[in-house]
Amino acid sequence: MKKSAFKLTIHMVASLDGFIAKKDNSVSWFETVDYYEQGVTLTEQDMAEFLKTIDCYIMGSRTYEHALKLSKSYGWVYGDVPVIVLTHRNLPVDRPNVELYAGDLNNLVNERLKPNYNNVWMAGGATLAKDLISLKLADEIRVSIMPIILGEGKLFFDAIGQEQTLHLKGATAYKNGIVDLHYEIIK
Amino acid sequence: MKKSAFKLTIHMVASLDGFIAKKDNSVSWFETVDYYEQGVTLTEQDMAEFLKTIDCYIMGSRTYEHALKLSKSYGWVYGDVPVIVLTHRNLPVDRPNVELYAGDLNNLVNERLKPNYNNVWMAGGATLAKDLISLKLADEIRVSIMPIILGEGKLFFDAIGQEQTLHLKGATAYKNGIVDLHYEIIK
Repeated sequence: MKKSAFKLTIHMVASLDGFIAKKDNSVSWFETVDYYEQGVTLTEQDMAEFLKTIDCYIMGSRTYEHALKLSKSYGWVYGDVPVIVLTHRNLPVDRPNVELYAGDLNNLVNERLKPNYNNVWMAGGATLAKDLISLKLADEIRVSIMPIILGEGKLFFDAIGQEQTLHLKGATAYKNGIVDLHYEIIK
Repeated sequence: MKKSAFKLTIHMVASLDGFIAKKDNSVSWFETVDYYEQGVTLTEQDMAEFLKTIDCYIMGSRTYEHALKLSKSYGWVYGDVPVIVLTHRNLPVDRPNVELYAGDLNNLVNERLKPNYNNVWMAGGATLAKDLISLKLADEIRVSIMPIILGEGKLFFDAIGQEQTLHLKGATAYKNGIVDLHYEIIK
């Protein structure tokens, strides 16, 4: 397959007040009960088509540990797509497509990801998101805003400490009250 | 004029990372230079029509002081609409429609605002926003998300400390890259 343009997208699911996790790490708030009449319906097929375009995931260690824990009840959500976990810890790996990476982020993106993949998603990790933005390694950001104020928790964008101009590429409101915002990171 | 249903709306302008002010209070980031092809155009007439529906503003003391300072260069943005400033300080008042209020928030909303106004906007103040949400006195929230990551500053929603379910009422993306999200606060 011909190698098309490379893109690294940071994806986050956040409350309106910008939290990506509660202090107790519970995730029941992901299941919204809102109904927005004018919203777009996202079918399972649309979702599957969309997910098929992602050819690699990268994530922080705590996101991985969380996915591992959830996989015991709900299965492994990343299927056979390669997953690279950024960590210096020696975490359990029991899937052939999961790899731990402890090296430099610039090397990861330029030497590992760019030559091999087209559409890489950063699936979680506040520190990783911050570093990818600071180092100008991320190309796009997609935020799914849930119709809730959490009031406390872990901020995704906490303390990046530098301004970053964005270009709006899309805004979609869904029937379930979730709004997806899609931005290009101007470099 | 017949008194229609009362509504108190919290309005904020925020960066994608949820900041409403920079540490140095500079506001140049409000002037975005983005262009979003599919966005809606907001004309000055649309804006004027919209602002005409607001019959009272309430705000925190620092928002007021900031508006006072800006008024020296750009004029007073709230026109002849009544402005109630929540403060215990003895701030300068040099307009007939500006009033300082140091009393109880429940009394303000139920005894002063509800009998006299239809469409009240909370124009700024992180503490005031938090208190209005905690006390279940606000009816709606509108957030204008600018296409920028600020990386540091003052969080609008910092530490409300309680969950609040929302209902999405609208999502509009404008040509200038600003996205307006409009929620009802479920009580």
